[in-house]
Amino acid sequence: MTDIKAKIIKQVAPDLEQVEKALEENLDPNLDLVRRIASHLLFSGGKRLRPLLMIHSARICGYDTGFEILFSTIFEYLHAATLLHDDVVDEADMRRGKKAAHTKWSAPKVVLTGDFLLARALAIAAKTREPRVISVIANITQAMSQGEIDQLEKKGQKDLSEAQYLEIIERKTAVLIQGACQSGAIISNADQEKENALASYGYHLGLAFQMADDLLDYTATAKELGKNPGADMREGKLTLPLIHSLSNAGDEERKWMHQVIADPVFDQGRFEELKEKLLTLGGIAYTQERAKDHVDKAKASLGIFEDSESKTLLQLIADYSIERKV
Amino acid sequence: MTDIKAKIIKQVAPDLEQVEKALEENLDPNLDLVRRIASHLLFSGGKRLRPLLMIHSARICGYDTGFEILFSTIFEYLHAATLLHDDVVDEADMRRGKKAAHTKWSAPKVVLTGDFLLARALAIAAKTREPRVISVIANITQAMSQGEIDQLEKKGQKDLSEAQYLEIIERKTAVLIQGACQSGAIISNADQEKENALASYGYHLGLAFQMADDLLDYTATAKELGKNPGADMREGKLTLPLIHSLSNAGDEERKWMHQVIADPVFDQGRFEELKEKLLTLGGIAYTQERAKDHVDKAKASLGIFEDSESKTLLQLIADYSIERKV
Repeated sequence: MTDIKAKIIKQVAPDLEQVEKALEENLDPNLDLVRRIASHLLFSGGKRLRPLLMIHSARICGYDTGFEILFSTIFEYLHAATLLHDDVVDEADMRRGKKAAHTKWSAPKVVLTGDFLLARALAIAAKTREPRVISVIANITQAMSQGEIDQLEKKGQKDLSEAQYLEIIERKTAVLIQGACQSGAIISNADQEKENALASYGYHLGLAFQMADDLLDYTATAKELGKNPGADMREGKLTLPLIHSLSNAGDEERKWMHQVIADPVFDQGRFEELKEKLLTLGGIAYTQERAKDHVDKAKASLGIFEDSESKTLLQLIADYSIERKV
Repeated sequence: MTDIKAKIIKQVAPDLEQVEKALEENLDPNLDLVRRIASHLLFSGGKRLRPLLMIHSARICGYDTGFEILFSTIFEYLHAATLLHDDVVDEADMRRGKKAAHTKWSAPKVVLTGDFLLARALAIAAKTREPRVISVIANITQAMSQGEIDQLEKKGQKDLSEAQYLEIIERKTAVLIQGACQSGAIISNADQEKENALASYGYHLGLAFQMADDLLDYTATAKELGKNPGADMREGKLTLPLIHSLSNAGDEERKWMHQVIADPVFDQGRFEELKEKLLTLGGIAYTQERAKDHVDKAKASLGIFEDSESKTLLQLIADYSIERKV
């Protein structure tokens, strides 16, 4: 385990225990089948990043009622709901190292369990008595659903600009993480400056986090990932390592890369060659730099806060977002 | 046109015009594709029952800010969201006399457009600044998603009790109509007695409405319905006309009915014979009686309100719910 990860785990262990308990207790379905489908994803070793971010975004603003644990489940339920809908959309077979829910249950049941989890998020959000938390959830859901549709439309598209890529990962990942951090400020009745700072922290952290994810799809092993690497390429999703490499490639190289990407048959040997290209053409290094840049921006956003345990933790999480292996 | 329908239409024409405009204006997607998928269902001749119920539930409580038009769109967007998810679940081919959205666009896009519409409902609900409206929406979504899963599990089940049927239609239809009426009271800051009365009105109206729907599936023509009759039977859904008739049938008759229901090949001649059975075994008459009973309960719930135009309208809508041909 890396030094950063060890520090984070030490600090969040008591929170994590309470979050797990709250996630179990508040799931509260009428049907056992719903519990089974929801639990399959919810309790399969997620990092609980979004709840932890909300908890410490609240605490950095001085919130200390203890309700931040309950409220933080909003963003894990919401996250799980979007994963269930996304898995059906992507037809991905693996998630968090386990078979994706829709390979065990029919797609309709998985979609409806996603709806149930969204409803649980809403029921708990209503308890905050803050209509702005609801607005945040509405914005997240609007952005994510439209982002997924947009990505479906762009699937298999041979060229995607860096700007288009940024728009996709903003909707896919950053708005939810931003919303979790911003909601921590909202429940604390923090002033607008603090709320904006935490929203900015979450936004840049989200971008860095997704870029790191997109890197891992080309650099990690199947064991580390909990699913096969190269999944994005197989699904026809162009991500920054590839987009940047394509822009640096010569005509012949670009043609070869497009052939590999478009080939419906996955070949491990050619995938290894493609990974080499991403190194030599600079796509890996460029994505690492861009991710590091967003980590720096995330940390800079915290500048207005006085030193505290939560501030240290949020800084560590930013560093960890690009350092992690899973 | 019947007398009741004419009276209702005359009274709600100005509201309807404003509701249509609000539904158009507030849809507000970033992607044209989302507008097309959402509009396909939203603007294809829905009755706008739920918005009208919310508007007049607010007005019967004395609400008169004009915002009831905007807020009423919550329940049409929510209704449309659930229809989009249900169509994918049911694999129904027709909806409101048009091809169902998922036969024109892929199921994932339809699911995600449903998510977008739910998000629009939430965004507008946040504007009410009433966390209890959010709780109502959360309850509706929880009940409906679990209800659909439960119905999927029970599909093809040979026997369903009347109590199980009631539970299904409560979740499928009544909770949403109840929620629309209750939310009208909530935005009006009405006292608990009035809120309960409107919730009760909506609940019984919803049950009557669904029973009438289930009757029409056996009694209406394809032209009246905007889809082929017998859809429930083909989808393996037992509804009250059939459930009650089965309970009155002799052994031979019941065996024959079960064969017709279970046969994967639809035969128009045998469907006509089955319809005859539902008449002679009393399933049609019994369902009509039960629906009428809920209409009476719905109207009785309005007893605590003084006479007003909105009260008259809500009474007329209750009568119309079982009198309608579509």
